[in-house]
Amino acid sequence: MKICRFTPGGVIPRWGVVEGETVYEVSYNHGGPLIAHDLSEINLLPPVMPGKVICVGLNYRDHAEEMRQDLPEEPVLFLKPPSAVIGPGKPVICPQTSRRVDYEAELAVVMSKTARCIPAADACRYILGYTCANDITARDLQAKDGQWTRAKSFDTFLPLGPYLVSGLDPDNLDISLYLNGERKQHSNTSRLIFTVPRLINFISSVMTLEPGDVILTGTPAGVGRLNRGDTVEVVIEGVGRLINPVK
Amino acid sequence: MKICRFTPGGVIPRWGVVEGETVYEVSYNHGGPLIAHDLSEINLLPPVMPGKVICVGLNYRDHAEEMRQDLPEEPVLFLKPPSAVIGPGKPVICPQTSRRVDYEAELAVVMSKTARCIPAADACRYILGYTCANDITARDLQAKDGQWTRAKSFDTFLPLGPYLVSGLDPDNLDISLYLNGERKQHSNTSRLIFTVPRLINFISSVMTLEPGDVILTGTPAGVGRLNRGDTVEVVIEGVGRLINPVK
Repeated sequence: MKICRFTPGGVIPRWGVVEGETVYEVSYNHGGPLIAHDLSEINLLPPVMPGKVICVGLNYRDHAEEMRQDLPEEPVLFLKPPSAVIGPGKPVICPQTSRRVDYEAELAVVMSKTARCIPAADACRYILGYTCANDITARDLQAKDGQWTRAKSFDTFLPLGPYLVSGLDPDNLDISLYLNGERKQHSNTSRLIFTVPRLINFISSVMTLEPGDVILTGTPAGVGRLNRGDTVEVVIEGVGRLINPVK
Repeated sequence: MKICRFTPGGVIPRWGVVEGETVYEVSYNHGGPLIAHDLSEINLLPPVMPGKVICVGLNYRDHAEEMRQDLPEEPVLFLKPPSAVIGPGKPVICPQTSRRVDYEAELAVVMSKTARCIPAADACRYILGYTCANDITARDLQAKDGQWTRAKSFDTFLPLGPYLVSGLDPDNLDISLYLNGERKQHSNTSRLIFTVPRLINFISSVMTLEPGDVILTGTPAGVGRLNRGDTVEVVIEGVGRLINPVK
């Protein structure tokens, strides 16, 4: 099932189920008739507003090989603030304080239930679904600070969307990033060093995960620079296309 | 004014104003009589449940001198997850995966309004109040990971409380930490490298701050190890005493 959050013109977010080019509104209905919208006529919002966003530093074999780094023994975690989240179509704003802003295509996992110390074998029961993420990073500030938080926390630095998709196998999905129509990243989640269930096991053994929390699973090889005026697009097989302009 | 969140026995959190040993309940009243509780008879909760917690890495001159580090040009930021927050009296749990868990006494600033790119001169208008924080840190994992997130994100690793205190001058407050009654940290917020208004200016220029967001302002010299069975106490002049057992 593909779920979206949207506004049909007003300001109150609504939930919809997406079938082809039609969105069936499933909230604020109170037993009235099922309302259908044309996908092209609604304003898509981020499909989740997470309480927290937990990210993994280096989690694709191809990216590790490209960087000539040893494979990590354990995931390296960092956090992005919920204030960085934007929806599909909304502009990524390059801050004045950075001279180098990069894209990073990532599969995002959305949690469905409170999760604490969950064995990998049980992890899928705690997943609501998947969406596309772009882990925008001010590469120069990342190097300057040592800690990655400032570089990854600017407002608009976490595009999420377009849909939340349930019922997928996260272990074999093609993932690509296109910059102005040209493919810059291309891999498959089968090349994740730490699989989605293993990440949920590891992270939930550190901190309690709550419904709506988001896990970013890392980016493959081919990261690079964004410039104002660009259009950046994350495409994940079965999940969707997340397109954002850059300003 | 001293404000607390508490439960008088039930499960729904309430707000109270603390005067001496009495708590005047100011929520869920609906025009009924003002209810007073004995402070000793209520269960204090964290005085805020933040949407995000932004922390500063090295912000006391005495700690920088102790570590023989140059004073940083800009604050180094990191985030702690809201899931780490506990209230006064609740136990800090040492995780099995760490062999060295440290205390860090810090002044916490609680935001009152949405704040984006706020000049330092205006910052105080965005502050709701102050509380005591203990930035518990798994020192061995901090060194191992490089990124500080895992080391600082375990459940129970952010005691906050006991009260939220408004109307203070944050630039001249004594701050101490006592371990089993023995003073281990002692400084004054006048020794902050980046003052509270400067931190709000810097952080709000990266990410939008929302009401209830918390800023931890850094820890002074004298950080050290916690052991199971210890009692750890953060004391800030005019703010209160935050006491937690360690398990």
